[in-house]
Amino acid sequence: MIGIGTGNPEHVTIQAIRALNTVDVVFALGKGQEKADLVALRRAICERYIEGRSYRFVEAQDPERDRDPADYGGTVEAWHAARAALYEALIAAELPEEGVGAILVWGDPSLYDSTLRIVDRIEARGRLPLAVRVIPGISSVQALAASHRIALNRIGAPIHITTGRQIAGGLPPDADSIVVMLDGHPRFDHLDPDLTIYWGAYLGSADEIVLSGRLGDVAGEIGRLRTEARARHGWIMDTYLLRRGD
Amino acid sequence: MIGIGTGNPEHVTIQAIRALNTVDVVFALGKGQEKADLVALRRAICERYIEGRSYRFVEAQDPERDRDPADYGGTVEAWHAARAALYEALIAAELPEEGVGAILVWGDPSLYDSTLRIVDRIEARGRLPLAVRVIPGISSVQALAASHRIALNRIGAPIHITTGRQIAGGLPPDADSIVVMLDGHPRFDHLDPDLTIYWGAYLGSADEIVLSGRLGDVAGEIGRLRTEARARHGWIMDTYLLRRGD
Repeated sequence: MIGIGTGNPEHVTIQAIRALNTVDVVFALGKGQEKADLVALRRAICERYIEGRSYRFVEAQDPERDRDPADYGGTVEAWHAARAALYEALIAAELPEEGVGAILVWGDPSLYDSTLRIVDRIEARGRLPLAVRVIPGISSVQALAASHRIALNRIGAPIHITTGRQIAGGLPPDADSIVVMLDGHPRFDHLDPDLTIYWGAYLGSADEIVLSGRLGDVAGEIGRLRTEARARHGWIMDTYLLRRGD
Repeated sequence: MIGIGTGNPEHVTIQAIRALNTVDVVFALGKGQEKADLVALRRAICERYIEGRSYRFVEAQDPERDRDPADYGGTVEAWHAARAALYEALIAAELPEEGVGAILVWGDPSLYDSTLRIVDRIEARGRLPLAVRVIPGISSVQALAASHRIALNRIGAPIHITTGRQIAGGLPPDADSIVVMLDGHPRFDHLDPDLTIYWGAYLGSADEIVLSGRLGDVAGEIGRLRTEARARHGWIMDTYLLRRGD
C-alpha cells in the first residue's frame, strides 16, 4: 500500500519509488471523472518511476457509493465490504503466488482513506495469505500548509482534523486550529465570519487553487471558485484550515 | 524550507531532491547529541541526493533553550527571536545575492516545527529580501501510522493532534483518536488503562521501535524501552496515538 502524495508526481518519495520497482501488478479502482483522473495519475506515476521492470496495471470499476447516505455507518460498511470482495477477487485472479501487488493511495494511507481497512478485511477473511506493507505519502493537509506557508498548529497548541460532516453542526468549542477534509458541500454561513480560512483545492497538482483570508470576506469567492472549478474538472477535492483569532 | 521526512533517507520526495539540487548553501543548527545526529542525517541526505552541484553546508550552534520552562510562551518567544537573529546573520554572511539557501526540516514543516515562524520573523524584520518556498515532508505521525498499519482516524471521525504538555491534565473529553507529539516525559498513569496505545520512537529510522496494546498492559514496557533507548542514543523522540474503545 503506497502513499503517492496529492497529485504532484514529485510528491512521491524514494521509498515509494523503490517499492514500485518491486511490483508485479498495480491495482486501481476507477469510476466517473474524478476516479478516471486519479487512475490516470496513478498510471503516470508508474510510467514515470518504474524502470526496466514489467508490471501489469489492473483497473476495475469501483463499487457504487452513496456520498450522502441517510445511514452513514451502514452505507460505509457495505461499501467497504464490496470493495474488499472486489480487491480479493482481483488479487486472487491477477496476482501470481509470491507476487507483489500495489495499491496506490492518493495522499497518505493513514488519513481518511479506506484502503487499510479494506485490506484488513481481506486478511480477516483468511482466504488470501497477504504480507502487507504501508508506505506513507504526502497528504493534502501538508500540501495545503506548504502552499500557504503556514504551520498547522499555533505554538504548542493542538490541531483538530475533521470532516465536513462533523462540523455541520458547528466547530468543536475549544479547538483553535481545525483542518477540514472531505467536505463535499462546504457551507460557511453557520461559522464565525471572523475565523481565518486557509483553503485549497486540487492541492499539489498543476490545477491547485489556494485562497486565504477572513472567512466572512472570502467565503463567497471560495464558493465561486469551487463552482467554476468543479464544472471545469467534473469533480473537486478541497481541504481547508480554520483558525480562531489569527 | 525542505521537509526531509523522519530519519529514513528514503522518505525524501522527488520534489525535495529537485529543490536540493538548486541549493547553494544548506543551513543547519546543531547542539548536543540529538542535534548532532540530526545534523548528520541532513548531511547524509545532501551527500546522497545532491549530484554534480557544489554547495556549502553551514552549521551553527542552536541557541540554548529551556525545555521545561516556568513561562512557556515567553521562553519560546525568546528562543524564536534568538534563532531568527542567528539565521538572519548566517544568511546575510553566507548566502550570495540571488543565492539559494535551504533549511532542512525534520519531518514536515507544518507540524510543531518553528522554522516557518522564524523565517516569517526574518521577513518581518525587513533587512533581508527573501523568497520563501516550502516543500512538505513525511511526518513522524505518518510514519507511526504506516509502521502500525493503521489509519489515524476512525471511520468519518476526527483526529486530535496535540502535545505532551497539553494532555498533562488529561485527554480532551470528546476525542477518540489522539496523536501525542513532543512528549518529553510521557506518563501514562493519569490516563485510562483501557485506552489502546500505538507508540513509536525514532520513527522511520533504522533504530525505529514500535509497540502497541492496551495502555494498562504496555505502559510499563514502553517506559523501560524509552529509558533504555534514551541511554543508548543520548536522546529520544517518540510519537503515539491513543484510541478510545479499540
